[in-house]
Amino acid sequence: MGSVDSVRTTTGWAARDASGLLSPFRFPLRNIGVEDVYIKVICCGICHTDIHQAKNDLGISRYPMVPGHEVVGEVLEVGSGVSKFKVGEVVGVGFIVGCCRACNPCESDEEQYCKKKIWTYNDVYTDGKPTQGGFSAAMVVDQKFVVKIPDGMDPEQAAPLLCAGLTVYSPLKHFGLSRSGLRGGILGLGGVGHMGVQIAKAMGHHVTVISSSDKKREEALAHLGADGYLVSSDASRMNELAGSLDYILDTVPAFHPLEPSLGLLKLNGRLIVLGVVNTPLQFMSPVLMSGRKSITGSSIGSIKEVEELMLFYKEKGLTSQIETIKMEYVNEAFRRLEKNDVRYRFVIDIAGSKLDQ
Amino acid sequence: MGSVDSVRTTTGWAARDASGLLSPFRFPLRNIGVEDVYIKVICCGICHTDIHQAKNDLGISRYPMVPGHEVVGEVLEVGSGVSKFKVGEVVGVGFIVGCCRACNPCESDEEQYCKKKIWTYNDVYTDGKPTQGGFSAAMVVDQKFVVKIPDGMDPEQAAPLLCAGLTVYSPLKHFGLSRSGLRGGILGLGGVGHMGVQIAKAMGHHVTVISSSDKKREEALAHLGADGYLVSSDASRMNELAGSLDYILDTVPAFHPLEPSLGLLKLNGRLIVLGVVNTPLQFMSPVLMSGRKSITGSSIGSIKEVEELMLFYKEKGLTSQIETIKMEYVNEAFRRLEKNDVRYRFVIDIAGSKLDQ
Repeated sequence: MGSVDSVRTTTGWAARDASGLLSPFRFPLRNIGVEDVYIKVICCGICHTDIHQAKNDLGISRYPMVPGHEVVGEVLEVGSGVSKFKVGEVVGVGFIVGCCRACNPCESDEEQYCKKKIWTYNDVYTDGKPTQGGFSAAMVVDQKFVVKIPDGMDPEQAAPLLCAGLTVYSPLKHFGLSRSGLRGGILGLGGVGHMGVQIAKAMGHHVTVISSSDKKREEALAHLGADGYLVSSDASRMNELAGSLDYILDTVPAFHPLEPSLGLLKLNGRLIVLGVVNTPLQFMSPVLMSGRKSITGSSIGSIKEVEELMLFYKEKGLTSQIETIKMEYVNEAFRRLEKNDVRYRFVIDIAGSKLDQ
Repeated sequence: MGSVDSVRTTTGWAARDASGLLSPFRFPLRNIGVEDVYIKVICCGICHTDIHQAKNDLGISRYPMVPGHEVVGEVLEVGSGVSKFKVGEVVGVGFIVGCCRACNPCESDEEQYCKKKIWTYNDVYTDGKPTQGGFSAAMVVDQKFVVKIPDGMDPEQAAPLLCAGLTVYSPLKHFGLSRSGLRGGILGLGGVGHMGVQIAKAMGHHVTVISSSDKKREEALAHLGADGYLVSSDASRMNELAGSLDYILDTVPAFHPLEPSLGLLKLNGRLIVLGVVNTPLQFMSPVLMSGRKSITGSSIGSIKEVEELMLFYKEKGLTSQIETIKMEYVNEAFRRLEKNDVRYRFVIDIAGSKLDQ
């Protein structure tokens, strides 16, 4: 934060090219508009997408780029039209900071599916300037895209809910899978998968973690409280559990066969794909037809749902499994996250870091 | 029909080997049990599956095999426990003649998904004897699997509803797609697809036929009453109509790319796969995720739904587009159906044929 000739600036850590290496970067913040909230960032989670964007893996990166879309901060100032927030409150910012407000998704509070949504970073705002994310000391965000954090919730606990948590909560709610008594599977135990186990358990589901190896059995069962653990190459167990699951949350972000998952689903079961995979996934039509099974996908979730999720987390007394780091460790954190060497989400303590170092 | 030493026999036309050629075949019928209905067959539709089974395309054929699962006939005699039907009534028999009656699907009137269902032909009945289908003069069928045909409905009109019609009606009902005002697509204009156009139109939908060529434009629009016709290779029209459909019924029984269909769907749109394809179909996960789209499948439908469909057809004054043939033409009909040379369903006039020829 700071001010030079009436232009407010702040410091973030930005990627400068496809190496994805982050380093300090000073950039201007827009003046606080009528609907804007000026936020001092407290902390920010690291999502695997941040690495993809920083390294231009999707071919759409613009530099310099300050990543970060699991942002929690304190309100420092609000525009004259802001009614939802007051100075001093703790708030969140997720993956979008703008939408058209006129299309069907926008009108049904599903702005995450608006075709004109503006991403929190690596996008262009309505003023023509680049958007920059939460790996920075401060942000200015339209109140519509600012999320209430319940009183007393630890900011570092709240951060991963803004993307990883919401990514599993939204489809379970949308597809009518949030009632208790269901049997669910979680495929892949990373940042999204671990939240999947917690949230599904808190909804009262019987939860089985499905993995390609036996390595995470102990942590799935003992640490995360899963009810079952299934190695997908164990044909005899896979066969025993055929037709036993109401849904599977598939969080694997690389090519993998879908037949084992489809075989585990009950009649009318849903395979919900949450991982961006850049090669085609495959299925056999008779497998879907003979059990009226669905393969579907879901993209993060809405502001309304993430506010619901915050209350759900607080009410159920859940805690995110995080490793808190300082800003200067971020490049090492990226390296470790690429190797899945984190249990389960890095959260950067922005307020406690010296961003100019 | 006939009787030798108290064993009732009948004549059908059976395939004897994987050539799939049909010829007259005399076989025994079981004694009429308490729950059984003895039916004199009036007519029977020809489904593409009949050819697959006759030719052992699925590798599970048993010979001699009498095909036919779109059977309409007259009740000649009923068992002492039969309350649903009376002698002289016109009834139908679809693709199954048995189920376990105890599993979840059976208990929720979705016996088509029972894992122990008994197919109308090419299967083994509870007495250990082969089941034989409707290309025959008579059948004995448990009343649970006999369908009421509404008074005054032409038997030849009713026959195609028992499989082709039900195959499109069931998923539209199940997935909440039967309310008026929806926009649907029908991919592939064969026996199932033409019923899709009619049924969807009668539900009050705006219906677009999607095809790989321009050949069927006239018949789709003028004869079947579709609202639109779209050639999937016409990139500019496909682009104009992107995101415009609530659902697509995909009736194509061979490999085809799904991306064009997925692109046409709205947010939350469903691609409903109804064709058995023996090679994997493919999709890109971001395409599903970014629009919360689903790929799903459906297998024919229930007894309850086909009775509903019969009433729906009668109420809406719909007529199936059929070509009526005699039994002795069946091998030629198979040849023509394999080339899609029929508008749109063959129905064999069994009662009017001399089966022993």
